[in-house]
Amino acid sequence: MSALIPIRPVGFVRGGRTSPDDDGWRENAARIDLDTDEFGPEALAGLEAFSHVEVLFHFDRVRDEAVEKGARHPRGNAAWPKVGIFAQRGKERPNRIGASICEILSVDGTTLRLRGLDAIDGTPVIDIKPVMSGFLPRGRLREPAWAVELMRGYW
Amino acid sequence: MSALIPIRPVGFVRGGRTSPDDDGWRENAARIDLDTDEFGPEALAGLEAFSHVEVLFHFDRVRDEAVEKGARHPRGNAAWPKVGIFAQRGKERPNRIGASICEILSVDGTTLRLRGLDAIDGTPVIDIKPVMSGFLPRGRLREPAWAVELMRGYW
Repeated sequence: MSALIPIRPVGFVRGGRTSPDDDGWRENAARIDLDTDEFGPEALAGLEAFSHVEVLFHFDRVRDEAVEKGARHPRGNAAWPKVGIFAQRGKERPNRIGASICEILSVDGTTLRLRGLDAIDGTPVIDIKPVMSGFLPRGRLREPAWAVELMRGYW
Repeated sequence: MSALIPIRPVGFVRGGRTSPDDDGWRENAARIDLDTDEFGPEALAGLEAFSHVEVLFHFDRVRDEAVEKGARHPRGNAAWPKVGIFAQRGKERPNRIGASICEILSVDGTTLRLRGLDAIDGTPVIDIKPVMSGFLPRGRLREPAWAVELMRGYW
């Protein structure tokens, strides 16, 4: 097994939903409080000039035994094809990292208020990145029908 | 300081560029070889139905001392505002995680061939996620002028 990569929370999700439901995240309002032992307000300076942020977080409530390393039906739905864990975005994945784009409501000191963050209260945050148009997909996006169907009620 | 989150490489970037230059990544062709002690071809099954993938990786060549925890001018360019490390996407960041969207060229066993991956040969990969339209930004994107300017020669 490869060596551990030293990664620590830079802050935590506070407020918003407390249960990891599959759907209806669009209006979830939550904040990220940076770890103030490590970071000051300058770490978020200028973020208010962006409309969206990408948050990387750790699905810390997923147990080791639940992690899928092969293939499975997304959400256990047999109507959708059995695909590899790296061909889906489910939380029971190796390293249990979530990556999600949401709207910035405000930046206030070491607190970032967000709308549509699909992570529950208490979730450790491992990075925050501004969304730049230059980092969105280049060229036409293609995806299978099941991925569109799965997202129908998500937001 | 918060506790370590147990994160290990799921594979490595092989081939492509060997130097972390600022610009000109569009045509960089590289592959990701999964760690075959941990994963088989089923982990990538179905990924070929997607055109793009998001790769999370570790900027392992960035030294601890180089990590910025406050604010700085992006790329050290004083013509751009001094902004927080979480308001830019530079590699000298806490936890040194990169998140990048690139095109899938092919999926072959435990090897994924990509175009436009902005990570150098040997980089540890910590997650691979399919890009779904449903996870792109919702609502209109707003970003400061410097972010557009910085990306001008990137791809």
